[in-house]
Amino acid sequence: MSIDLTAASITEAVQKTFEGAEDERVKELFIRLVQHLHDFTREVRLTGEEWFTAMDFLERVGKTCTPTRQEFVLLSDILGLSVLVDLIHHPGGGSVTDSTLLGPFYVEGRPTAQNGSDISGEVEGIPLFFNGRVLDPDGNPVAGAKVDTWHSDGEGFYDVQMQDKLHGRLAMRALLTTDDEGRFWYRSVAPRYYPVPNDGPCGEILRAANRSPMRPEHLHFRLHAEGFEPLITMLVRSDDPYVERDAVFGVRRSLVVDFVHHDAGDTAPDGTRMGEPFQTVERTFVLDHREH
Amino acid sequence: MSIDLTAASITEAVQKTFEGAEDERVKELFIRLVQHLHDFTREVRLTGEEWFTAMDFLERVGKTCTPTRQEFVLLSDILGLSVLVDLIHHPGGGSVTDSTLLGPFYVEGRPTAQNGSDISGEVEGIPLFFNGRVLDPDGNPVAGAKVDTWHSDGEGFYDVQMQDKLHGRLAMRALLTTDDEGRFWYRSVAPRYYPVPNDGPCGEILRAANRSPMRPEHLHFRLHAEGFEPLITMLVRSDDPYVERDAVFGVRRSLVVDFVHHDAGDTAPDGTRMGEPFQTVERTFVLDHREH
Repeated sequence: MSIDLTAASITEAVQKTFEGAEDERVKELFIRLVQHLHDFTREVRLTGEEWFTAMDFLERVGKTCTPTRQEFVLLSDILGLSVLVDLIHHPGGGSVTDSTLLGPFYVEGRPTAQNGSDISGEVEGIPLFFNGRVLDPDGNPVAGAKVDTWHSDGEGFYDVQMQDKLHGRLAMRALLTTDDEGRFWYRSVAPRYYPVPNDGPCGEILRAANRSPMRPEHLHFRLHAEGFEPLITMLVRSDDPYVERDAVFGVRRSLVVDFVHHDAGDTAPDGTRMGEPFQTVERTFVLDHREH
Repeated sequence: MSIDLTAASITEAVQKTFEGAEDERVKELFIRLVQHLHDFTREVRLTGEEWFTAMDFLERVGKTCTPTRQEFVLLSDILGLSVLVDLIHHPGGGSVTDSTLLGPFYVEGRPTAQNGSDISGEVEGIPLFFNGRVLDPDGNPVAGAKVDTWHSDGEGFYDVQMQDKLHGRLAMRALLTTDDEGRFWYRSVAPRYYPVPNDGPCGEILRAANRSPMRPEHLHFRLHAEGFEPLITMLVRSDDPYVERDAVFGVRRSLVVDFVHHDAGDTAPDGTRMGEPFQTVERTFVLDHREH
């Protein structure tokens, strides 16, 4: 019965219309969603004008989405929802490496690379040498683990954001494989802090709230190995100015690492005597055994 | 400080980022929105897969919006939000006529019409004669009130949904003006119950919930008069099969009226002896004085 409704009784009336759902989870999700959407609307006494602004905003968010830009994911990110979903299922703080956001710049078609190779894709920047190790919870090396890594250039741009300049090539990303000791290593260029895309509807929210759009400098990693839970994580530069105020709430202290500066003339991890300053980063990742 | 967050502490961290908003209302709206979005996400322990499905759904809702189809308004309608916003500010039950949804079919460029004219725009159907009166709360006629009316045809379609057939003309809608006694009247064709557009993302929700997409037969009205609050309302056919279960929760009992059947040979309100069956509807609208 959806007649003679009041601002109080309409919520139960709407919830009842979801009771016929065959999928119990669909029923639960919509009944709780309606409760919170209605409670919010009543609490703030949302006006017709504000409602109209919201409808127009959401339409523009949808229209901003393209295959290489997901403005709804960004909206979820800046409202802390994306990280919340991750935190609910991966609270972290245990012996395995904490997970965090995948972010919008992961690309399926990334090239494979040999350990020790330069994955910068001819992008210029401060040389960066990364040495990683993958272990199980008991400290045993995980050999043959597949490690995706991707990051920005020294101006904060990912390859997919400068396809004109790169003539359609991918760069600063690769799929590596750990050796018998669980090690993987590569050379690239140092990344940089950068703003989330703020020329669209989400930028309006950030400006209205006087919020910074910046994410601190970081390297992304995605690890898969037979018998282990997949891990999506990232490492954040410890002395970055935005490390304590990531625009999308994706930094965990356990994932903050030193990007070590070396002077020209020092020897790189691969034995090269470098003619220019460079950086090194080291990190061990601990994967969890797959639940069965 | 947005580091070392947990599924519990992230909400306050996100809310704090809105405290720098200059507009107090923006601050309030986002702080409460974040609270409810996060509470919902925690309560149902939303999974990453469900979150991804939601992001994809919202993008598709945005992409479905066109100048003549507003899928986010429809989403708001089927979740009862649109009516809730109206009920909060217009609880009704007083001496003035209750308001309800504007709906998606109001068009700014509607033609003006003289009282008594046929506004059907050459659309075929059962003749319908409407007689209305506009009064103030004391029962005095409101002369010179502007009355918009619009409705579907006998198959449930509005003019904007059959522009090919109508060669771009508008039909079954007009702007009328009340006479010195507050009266307005017109001839048209009887409308019909119809489904909300269910071939898009919102249709997926209705089907997943086994919900009817139908709205009962109704006539829309929008009234403006100098010194009075504008009124958006509609009249719903009392013997319609969907009167108690409108898909968008827009029916109020006070707005249910009889669409009276007359046989061929009876005399219409305009004095015409009709050669076919027809319907008549009468209604008085009471406008509220404008608040100052």
